[in-house]
Amino acid sequence: MAPIAVTPPCEPVTTITKPYSHGLAELDASLLQTTLTTSPRPVPALGSPEMASQRTCTDHMIQATWNSETGWSAPTLTPYGPLSLMPTASCLHYATECFEGMKLYRGFDGKLRLFRPDLNCKRMLVSTNRISLPSFPPDELLKLIAKLCATDGPRWLPKDRPGSFLYIRPTMIATDPALGVQRPTEAMLYVILTCFAPMDDVPGGMKLLASQDDMVRAWPGGFGYAKVGANYGPSLVAQGEARRRGYHQILWLFGDECYVTEAGASNFFVVWRTKEEGKLQLVTASLDERIVLDGVTRRSVLELARTRLADASAAAEEEGLEPLEVVERRYTMFEVEEAAREGRLVEAFGAGTAWFVAPVGKIHFRGKDIEVPQSEGDGGRYTKAVKRWLKGIMWGEEGSEAHEWGYVVEEK
Amino acid sequence: MAPIAVTPPCEPVTTITKPYSHGLAELDASLLQTTLTTSPRPVPALGSPEMASQRTCTDHMIQATWNSETGWSAPTLTPYGPLSLMPTASCLHYATECFEGMKLYRGFDGKLRLFRPDLNCKRMLVSTNRISLPSFPPDELLKLIAKLCATDGPRWLPKDRPGSFLYIRPTMIATDPALGVQRPTEAMLYVILTCFAPMDDVPGGMKLLASQDDMVRAWPGGFGYAKVGANYGPSLVAQGEARRRGYHQILWLFGDECYVTEAGASNFFVVWRTKEEGKLQLVTASLDERIVLDGVTRRSVLELARTRLADASAAAEEEGLEPLEVVERRYTMFEVEEAAREGRLVEAFGAGTAWFVAPVGKIHFRGKDIEVPQSEGDGGRYTKAVKRWLKGIMWGEEGSEAHEWGYVVEEK
Repeated sequence: MAPIAVTPPCEPVTTITKPYSHGLAELDASLLQTTLTTSPRPVPALGSPEMASQRTCTDHMIQATWNSETGWSAPTLTPYGPLSLMPTASCLHYATECFEGMKLYRGFDGKLRLFRPDLNCKRMLVSTNRISLPSFPPDELLKLIAKLCATDGPRWLPKDRPGSFLYIRPTMIATDPALGVQRPTEAMLYVILTCFAPMDDVPGGMKLLASQDDMVRAWPGGFGYAKVGANYGPSLVAQGEARRRGYHQILWLFGDECYVTEAGASNFFVVWRTKEEGKLQLVTASLDERIVLDGVTRRSVLELARTRLADASAAAEEEGLEPLEVVERRYTMFEVEEAAREGRLVEAFGAGTAWFVAPVGKIHFRGKDIEVPQSEGDGGRYTKAVKRWLKGIMWGEEGSEAHEWGYVVEEK
Repeated sequence: MAPIAVTPPCEPVTTITKPYSHGLAELDASLLQTTLTTSPRPVPALGSPEMASQRTCTDHMIQATWNSETGWSAPTLTPYGPLSLMPTASCLHYATECFEGMKLYRGFDGKLRLFRPDLNCKRMLVSTNRISLPSFPPDELLKLIAKLCATDGPRWLPKDRPGSFLYIRPTMIATDPALGVQRPTEAMLYVILTCFAPMDDVPGGMKLLASQDDMVRAWPGGFGYAKVGANYGPSLVAQGEARRRGYHQILWLFGDECYVTEAGASNFFVVWRTKEEGKLQLVTASLDERIVLDGVTRRSVLELARTRLADASAAAEEEGLEPLEVVERRYTMFEVEEAAREGRLVEAFGAGTAWFVAPVGKIHFRGKDIEVPQSEGDGGRYTKAVKRWLKGIMWGEEGSEAHEWGYVVEEK
């Protein structure tokens, strides 16, 4: 994979620094100005089409504006409604935009929780830096998100719906009304909450279509690691084609070697036995080349597996699971194919906020279907164990109520 | 450059086809509904800050909306003003957006002209296809653009300002108010006209900073050939760094071989003598790998050079220019560097709608400055000849009033 090698002498053109922030007003959640709606909208029923449409937002939204001369304005919490943008707005032409994806969980213990929200807020800063949008203190973003969740959570995720969730979308866009191709001088941060149906329950597992050389999601020196809009729109032609052909997502490969990178907008994991020693491994693409998103779910799966599925782990023993080794490395579709052919492929799953942990049942690669075993019918044993553990933390199940990854939102 | 090679068997995942259009309403300029402003705004003076800000739009705009169930609405021509978009709009999250850049010229013969607008309208369709936006008949877009130009041109480009221009920005955005990562089902086309200052007159020529391996503009299998927002936002960090260091633009290189691709948002040309035979050549990156934009100015420069600068051309003889060979191929920054070192580099320029034909004076590459000769002080002889020829066609100078590349807009 030649282009990855860095030929010296090559100091980076760009170092990620905080742009513009010297002496300018910082984003400050304590300045929040609240205007509540006088006409709250009906909350869709669980399982209703509105719930699944990803169109229905809650009653309020957070907004804060920024410009390069004064910095951040006081944030506001106001009734949800349309944005007014000039037709020249930078974000409508130059994809000067980034976002995060998080969920608000109504726990089985009655509490509202976020899952590791500090990681999302920090990654949002990585994304804004990559796409020339302004910096902000990630903790302040987290406070604003928590405030919105505290405002709309009680009615939109009522206590009689334990195990349900809302999707949280922090977004930043450049709003400069000027067509010059240049670093934005005006921006808007906003946060909205939408209804969202669970996507992890795919009968028979997800069917993935491996990408071909004419469609490449990300490249070394690009921006695959950042949650910028520019990673998503260009993937939709391939994704639409995959859906048309009956697949759920594209499995994005990279290079002639067909390195496995991501599945749709999720990270991708396989469990296999090694060819040489028959060692059981959980494998996912490493972050080294920065072509893969540093997913919060990805990271959590790896951390849980490293503690609970390691040799001599009590958790593994309790679940009756053979311990495994956790590996982050480059690996190729040819290796996956060979493992399947030789009966060494144990399971595979996608992991991300939207899809959660979704078992994979089939991968189409170069004219052939690779069947992925589903040891428990609706997924593999490891997939299901990891998912159960994460669920416990997200929804505050017995024994996990106080897990450090759960961030309890105090309701009014 | 290994990843470019296509390993068989690899039929493309996606073929570009007209999506959704079967039986749906087509974009139809004859249905245009016009509502003129009752409060026309003042036209900025030539050379004023408003003229240069790229913020001042004319009095009207064209809009047309589309959805996947009914197709295109009747287009409208209405007073210029803000767009109302839901915070969930696809274009604000997934960069489902593309645009074109064109100019409206007030000719020295008093006429309003577009320059090869059919090429821009066709390329807009290439871009909408790449970014999953709807198809449209390019001719209908051209008719709408001409209508807007005929409406605002007479007052915003008055006849007493021959040689001036407005910038035309056709834009398409996905407006679906839904967060699902999927092909858009709602979109909006709009066209605006903005004031714009000439950018081609850079004293001493443009200074370019060659990109390093940590920043790549485009890659094979990506979308570098399309005018989609996703090509621009991610380039702004490097571009901002270049400006901070006193350069005008990034010269985008690709791969370990440092192939020369584009300069900022323009195509890039060099004139050099070959090492072996001392043959004079005009060289630019080929379009084969689809990492370079198929620029209308690029294409026009090549076509003019192939006819007017060929061996035994009367035009070349008239200008006193040595004929040259026109070459589209992969070429590397090392070749440019070597040509400069050996005194074979004759000149270099960027070519695009915004920058027009802008001479290059210096390129910083791996710690060293490469000086580009400027045979006529403010550019090279070939750069200036090409620019003069293009200007003649764009502004209808004597002898070029009827050139087939000029599209005359009939004024009311």
